[in-house]
Amino acid sequence: MNLMLLEKEDFQDGVAVIRGRRFTHAMEVLKIAQRSGECKAGVVNGPVGKAVLLAVDEAGQEMRLCFEPAGMPPPPLPLELVCAMQRPLTFRKIIHAAVTMGVKKIYFFHCRKVEKSYWSSPQVSEEAAMADAMLALEQTVDTVLPEFHYYDKFKPFAEDILPGIVAGKRFLAAHPAGAAPCPVDLQEPAVLTIGPEGGFTDYETEVWKNAGAELVTMGPRILRSEVAVPALIGRLYPGR
Amino acid sequence: MNLMLLEKEDFQDGVAVIRGRRFTHAMEVLKIAQRSGECKAGVVNGPVGKAVLLAVDEAGQEMRLCFEPAGMPPPPLPLELVCAMQRPLTFRKIIHAAVTMGVKKIYFFHCRKVEKSYWSSPQVSEEAAMADAMLALEQTVDTVLPEFHYYDKFKPFAEDILPGIVAGKRFLAAHPAGAAPCPVDLQEPAVLTIGPEGGFTDYETEVWKNAGAELVTMGPRILRSEVAVPALIGRLYPGR
Repeated sequence: MNLMLLEKEDFQDGVAVIRGRRFTHAMEVLKIAQRSGECKAGVVNGPVGKAVLLAVDEAGQEMRLCFEPAGMPPPPLPLELVCAMQRPLTFRKIIHAAVTMGVKKIYFFHCRKVEKSYWSSPQVSEEAAMADAMLALEQTVDTVLPEFHYYDKFKPFAEDILPGIVAGKRFLAAHPAGAAPCPVDLQEPAVLTIGPEGGFTDYETEVWKNAGAELVTMGPRILRSEVAVPALIGRLYPGR
Repeated sequence: MNLMLLEKEDFQDGVAVIRGRRFTHAMEVLKIAQRSGECKAGVVNGPVGKAVLLAVDEAGQEMRLCFEPAGMPPPPLPLELVCAMQRPLTFRKIIHAAVTMGVKKIYFFHCRKVEKSYWSSPQVSEEAAMADAMLALEQTVDTVLPEFHYYDKFKPFAEDILPGIVAGKRFLAAHPAGAAPCPVDLQEPAVLTIGPEGGFTDYETEVWKNAGAELVTMGPRILRSEVAVPALIGRLYPGR
């Protein structure tokens, strides 16, 4: 936790009252009470700054903090991720990597080589994903919540939703057999689509092409999605 | 397992005899016996090609394969990693990311903010690391084993070993407070050093500078090591 993320509901009369995970972390890892009496903090979708410890309750269950804003969070990455649903652990790792690197919109979709059971895992729920996203924001010192969208049917997603997502943006589909090397250091906003473990089918690849996608490859190596995502972001937007 | 990695010891009179994990994977996931009767394979530090199933024993415990070479593995990345020892799970994730992306030499070293206990974890042993590296090669369709080196004292490493590692190469130290942005698309070989969770101390940073390092930053975001490594490699060598 490089930043304590404060939510609107934490505040009572202008003072943040913190219990649970953030309290324990601030006390035991940051040792806020023994050390500086303050820590880096930010308000969800708001400024970053510092939280100054006002008091710890006698039972050692909660702290009261005063938040002092100092600036804005880092700018978002101009990249939206259109990601095949993954096995739950991979889903979580992708959210962590993408959110720490500044992605603010991820669309998860179903396609042929996605196992249907992934969709019913509790780890893939909106609630679990947002909890992971909060941790990722705390890691990366950001406050702006990402949006996650879920489409459990390929065709309606590809036909009705995708055109709106890619309109006016460069659209890249990561594909091992892609004809072109993935570009480097983009200056424009982009949408990147990542396939499931077994890759896209020929039909799905055709759908991307018809939607204006460039099929791009990272070379002969086959990377796991949780490695491919940061590697692709690193090369697409090295300047951010 | 996108490639079955065959070791010298697997061969008996020119035929590979496979049991255990690789046998089970080939039978149950690749379904080699029911499907094509062959799978992508490679020989450690040798060519890639295919393995053709000759026979499965009656007990269903082992298979005999004939290896047919077809070409060489992808070229190694011209990057060596000089990595502070990490907590064991992170250590494994870094090995996976770096090896799948083609890194062939990783030097793990101790420094101030590395917990001493990390060094005694069984997950950090050479044996465990090489087992993880083999899995990473099977993922990325490569055969060339990486080398891992371990230095559990900072000063002897920095003074006696490091100069030999960085000689003739560009030396980059990833540091949040680095003055320059991390470069993009290197054409020359490089050595990249990555700090522990808490970062390098001022003293350690001075040591890197004296050894010729450029302190480079990826921007305001603070990434976990297992995300930073693929993100950095992706921007340093997008062409590989």
